Amino acid sequence: MPQRIAVLGAGSWGTTFAKVLADAGRDVVLWARRPEVAAAITDRGENPDYLPGIPLPATLRSTVDPLAALDGAQAVVLAVPSQTLRENLAGWRPALPAGATLVSLAKGVELGTLKRMSEVVAEVAGVPAGQVAVVSGPNLAREIAAEQPTASVVACPDAERAVAFQRACFTNYFRSYTNTDVVGCELGGACKNVIALACGMAGGLGYGDNTMAALITRGLAETARLGVALGADPLTFSGLAGLGDLVATCASPLSRNRSFGDRLGRGETLVQAQEATNGQVAEGVKSCSSIRELAARHGVDMPITDGVYRVCHQGLEPLKMAAELLGRAQKDERQ
Amino acid sequence: MPQRIAVLGAGSWGTTFAKVLADAGRDVVLWARRPEVAAAITDRGENPDYLPGIPLPATLRSTVDPLAALDGAQAVVLAVPSQTLRENLAGWRPALPAGATLVSLAKGVELGTLKRMSEVVAEVAGVPAGQVAVVSGPNLAREIAAEQPTASVVACPDAERAVAFQRACFTNYFRSYTNTDVVGCELGGACKNVIALACGMAGGLGYGDNTMAALITRGLAETARLGVALGADPLTFSGLAGLGDLVATCASPLSRNRSFGDRLGRGETLVQAQEATNGQVAEGVKSCSSIRELAARHGVDMPITDGVYRVCHQGLEPLKMAAELLGRAQKDERQ
Repeated sequence: MPQRIAVLGAGSWGTTFAKVLADAGRDVVLWARRPEVAAAITDRGENPDYLPGIPLPATLRSTVDPLAALDGAQAVVLAVPSQTLRENLAGWRPALPAGATLVSLAKGVELGTLKRMSEVVAEVAGVPAGQVAVVSGPNLAREIAAEQPTASVVACPDAERAVAFQRACFTNYFRSYTNTDVVGCELGGACKNVIALACGMAGGLGYGDNTMAALITRGLAETARLGVALGADPLTFSGLAGLGDLVATCASPLSRNRSFGDRLGRGETLVQAQEATNGQVAEGVKSCSSIRELAARHGVDMPITDGVYRVCHQGLEPLKMAAELLGRAQKDERQ
Repeated sequence: MPQRIAVLGAGSWGTTFAKVLADAGRDVVLWARRPEVAAAITDRGENPDYLPGIPLPATLRSTVDPLAALDGAQAVVLAVPSQTLRENLAGWRPALPAGATLVSLAKGVELGTLKRMSEVVAEVAGVPAGQVAVVSGPNLAREIAAEQPTASVVACPDAERAVAFQRACFTNYFRSYTNTDVVGCELGGACKNVIALACGMAGGLGYGDNTMAALITRGLAETARLGVALGADPLTFSGLAGLGDLVATCASPLSRNRSFGDRLGRGETLVQAQEATNGQVAEGVKSCSSIRELAARHGVDMPITDGVYRVCHQGLEPLKMAAELLGRAQKDERQ
């Protein structure tokens, strides 16, 4: 089991996961980009920007120096946004300790290359796939930080490495299961943001829980179709990193993607929704492009993802998207 | 496609489904137990007890005479509570038109016999299983009555009969898929009420969306385990009658089971919760007993159902149930 762990990225999920590891008894150094954030975490035990009011463990140290964070680390947790992971990791690569488990917390499919995050990590770090793990599941950071009971999945093609890291993050409020299906776990995490946008749009249009449940069900089905085409185990999508993550994201008022979709459903443009959310665009707005492209490359039909893409990037009205989805031919559920 | 259809039971789901069929152009007669309900539906186009404010189609007639409702019916929709279905159907049996498709809307496992509703129907009506269909899915009656876009499943071992009934209930707001896996669809519908109770308890204890998503995921997994032991197709549980129905029931504030569980989670006793809900006990309180017994008979491990049973019927504190579920050994997700 890794004892010395670096967590790179002090956003809400990175900080929360560093807290989990420290609470589990690990020796954790959290890298933050900004000195005032690192100082607040180390000196006051708080990340005022991303987790205000949450007391962090006294043993958790933070630094702006990636070399200090990485020094002697047996596991390196990557908690930077998916579309900047490649660039960040390239800068850290020379300092990555040999043999360390590299753990991706990022969810998404890289624009352009259409690679999953673990693929980006293995490629940039120059390590075999068996050295890269991912953590995924119904893991709203804010709730974990509040020590609400949470289940998660640690996935790695190397089952022993998965078990070792599972043990490393074991606390009384955070329990993880292991899985060797990295492809399925990552796709579940990437696609759920797009489905959450669709659920938000439905809510914004005034639709209720039947519609949301149907979108979640059919959304998971199209995610699984893509996953199977990429070699994932279809059962993974029924698990915590598939269904679990999807439900938490779509049901939660804390979800950025869902509330962004809600704005679009109520008639705001992408620009208006972005302005209303401090210029931030929801992750699903970007990943619907790469996922749609990945689906096209593999000949997989993803009508919900396609609809979200057309709303976000081609000006389709959400109400028309809903009508199109409903207008699809009736058929056997398996088809 | 059946054109003359009897709907037996004018509660909220029976009345709503009668509306769907009438809107689809069918010739529907709805049997109500109480004369004032039948009169209000026929004369004023409203069911003031169960769907106040919802205008019903002018073509929809209601009667208290089951013989009048059944006369010439090519399909008979059974919309009475699961634990009284046997008794009601025994009374109607002599008047059931030969060859009519018998459609069960009831969800549950019969106490004592541990039979699913379609089994009860086939047995009491004396018809082969291929003549019995079930309708299941994320179908909150109130939302369908408001014509919100809803997807559903029509399941029947006889695929042609399923397609014929699917066509009979086709409207612009209600779309159904067909399935031949009646066992899976019925178990999904029965078990979801128990899982919704568990989600309600978690909410009442103050837990958030991570916990709810984990309960939904692991709850669906234990439902699927039971289903497979009974011969269901595991894929059914990822569909609308499994995941879809479960999500709608667990996420909706309209769900009786969820809000009943919430009361238990906040420390009310079963009797207190029952008093607060006009003496009604949530369906899951009853079905957790029969489902638990069914699981035991087939050697299937259902820890959430077992926990709900012990809270409802053996005085276990919800907080202790949560601790026990969390305390289960960590393992591979598939196990």
